[in-house]
Amino acid sequence: MAQEERIIATYRVKASCRDIEEKAHDICLEQTVEVTDELVRDQWIRERIVGTVEKICQRADESYEVIVSYSENITGYTLPGLLNVLYGNVSLKSGIMLDNLELSRTFTSRFGGPRFGIEGLRKLTGVFDRPLLAAPLKPLGKSPEDLGRLCYELALGGIDLIKDDHGLADQSFCPFKERVNACLDAIDRASRKTGRRALYFPCIMDRYEIMEENILWSREQGAGGILVSPMIVGMDFMRYISRDDRFGLPVMAHPALTGAFLNVTHGISHGVLLGTLMRLSGADMVIYPNFCGRFPFTRNSCITVNEALKRPFHGMKSAFPVPAGGISLSSIPELRELFGLEVVFLVGSSLFSRSSDIRSNAEHFLSLVK
Amino acid sequence: MAQEERIIATYRVKASCRDIEEKAHDICLEQTVEVTDELVRDQWIRERIVGTVEKICQRADESYEVIVSYSENITGYTLPGLLNVLYGNVSLKSGIMLDNLELSRTFTSRFGGPRFGIEGLRKLTGVFDRPLLAAPLKPLGKSPEDLGRLCYELALGGIDLIKDDHGLADQSFCPFKERVNACLDAIDRASRKTGRRALYFPCIMDRYEIMEENILWSREQGAGGILVSPMIVGMDFMRYISRDDRFGLPVMAHPALTGAFLNVTHGISHGVLLGTLMRLSGADMVIYPNFCGRFPFTRNSCITVNEALKRPFHGMKSAFPVPAGGISLSSIPELRELFGLEVVFLVGSSLFSRSSDIRSNAEHFLSLVK
Repeated sequence: MAQEERIIATYRVKASCRDIEEKAHDICLEQTVEVTDELVRDQWIRERIVGTVEKICQRADESYEVIVSYSENITGYTLPGLLNVLYGNVSLKSGIMLDNLELSRTFTSRFGGPRFGIEGLRKLTGVFDRPLLAAPLKPLGKSPEDLGRLCYELALGGIDLIKDDHGLADQSFCPFKERVNACLDAIDRASRKTGRRALYFPCIMDRYEIMEENILWSREQGAGGILVSPMIVGMDFMRYISRDDRFGLPVMAHPALTGAFLNVTHGISHGVLLGTLMRLSGADMVIYPNFCGRFPFTRNSCITVNEALKRPFHGMKSAFPVPAGGISLSSIPELRELFGLEVVFLVGSSLFSRSSDIRSNAEHFLSLVK
Repeated sequence: MAQEERIIATYRVKASCRDIEEKAHDICLEQTVEVTDELVRDQWIRERIVGTVEKICQRADESYEVIVSYSENITGYTLPGLLNVLYGNVSLKSGIMLDNLELSRTFTSRFGGPRFGIEGLRKLTGVFDRPLLAAPLKPLGKSPEDLGRLCYELALGGIDLIKDDHGLADQSFCPFKERVNACLDAIDRASRKTGRRALYFPCIMDRYEIMEENILWSREQGAGGILVSPMIVGMDFMRYISRDDRFGLPVMAHPALTGAFLNVTHGISHGVLLGTLMRLSGADMVIYPNFCGRFPFTRNSCITVNEALKRPFHGMKSAFPVPAGGISLSSIPELRELFGLEVVFLVGSSLFSRSSDIRSNAEHFLSLVK
């Protein structure tokens, strides 16, 4: 029988040289057997279930890099199982940051990843030679008719992907089905004029009972994809809808609620959470707050997310990074330089505030990446 | 028309006296319209959609208490919508802690909360005059037969609630159905001897596609409840299974992955996350790491969780706090004094390491609360 491959998790652990070995071993126990060392009497459990400390390296900042390997088998080969083994119980401790994650090809293949990925979205949009442009339908509080009008102008101006704001649900002032219909009508009308069809992504954030139905219905109406917030509706829900053929729509992931993990000393690194895990969970595009916007992300964090979404990953499709969160139009040329061709720029406030002529603002946005 | 009631969220915000007003207003925008102030041109949106700063108070520790009210309507009256409005985008900022949450009676009634609660679990166990006792089936790696034997001894010894370890899924070394059958057989055999029936809680952590089926099947077999990790499988999934009549089983919530939120300066407070939100989401019992155990929870944090699960909350049933995470048997008398009658003590390592006679260990555990 072939040797089972291992999950390789790198943690950054705050510890002194006196207690780092104990803390490292403690992670191995806590994430697997959840009992003290003395109670692991069975040799097989000790060797095959408890995590193994592979390496401990001191870092310059008085923390340690601890590499732990886990049996793939203990996850049950599911995403919830993986999340739990990587960070379930140690999340409740302190000074432990999951910094890096490596998975075997066999393990990775159980998940599938993005159905469309960068390549698929290029085909769907017909745009191959520049970054894609995205814009949100804002602000919350507008009626379906008003959002439809906005959607029309954005589509006329050449925006490729038009998405609901992630707080749009099924509110009385903007019912889900009325909104989706109004926006898809707008997309249709604009495409008859331009000859190109923008993809519209309705936000699916509702009670568990009706999310699937809403996706199926959206697809029937002609939605171009869907927007979900996986930390709110469940990472494995996103994996499920991205892989099930009945849905078959591109998935754009919003980072709502993920921020609590993106702490400097305790949590999950930007690259692992917004990069590797989102991609593994089937996101075709991952929105994250860009540096220099309204959120305190660093340039380096953004680069690690980009890399994790696009690096070779056992044949899994790449996902589009979608920098957002207060990008100004004036920074687009510089960002294009930094992020390269394979990126989606999502711009809201700066696009809407440029002038009252939304169509012309969108055309200007487009001119910046051509 | 009656005035709409408001969601009252209290944030603890790190700021200077120069920028606190701006930061407070920024929360109101970020959690609702997600655009800059100038772009909120519609008066109705400004008044009815954007959050309102109700109060700002300086605290002793150079942070500020900021009370923000939100329209209930913008949540779509769903749990995902509520989570998003409370902390979705600001999670991606820094120095913002959601410290307290007040909801109206009408809003609360949309969720339902615990189906059984403390009162229901008292009836199901037939125990009214002492804390309930719980024990986990550990460690991960044992076979269904071994876990069944452990379950038998625990039930014979008088444990009220026997739960899977939360890492137990459907692993090849311990398949879900074999394990549930082995444990329920053990419960049956023990109950024929003792005349009392312990409740067995299998862990439901699997692919999205089969969790519901696994719960229905477990119920048919005679499971006493189910264990879920809502931050991993979805808070709204927990609400759904707790309220849907087809399931109808008590729900025990495990805090895996919640720890990243329980930061001192940025996240969601213990009382709100493990207390109010878990209760609102239908948990009948909430496991949390007790102070003095393997996790760095303070005594005060534990008290706030207890209070939030049991305080009067618009007629919603109370949920059982379940302190765990390294409780020693010797501390039970003191903890009983502190937490009172309405608590479930979940003890693992200390129970198993007392002697090799698990049944006698369980009897001793029981003697400590009688």
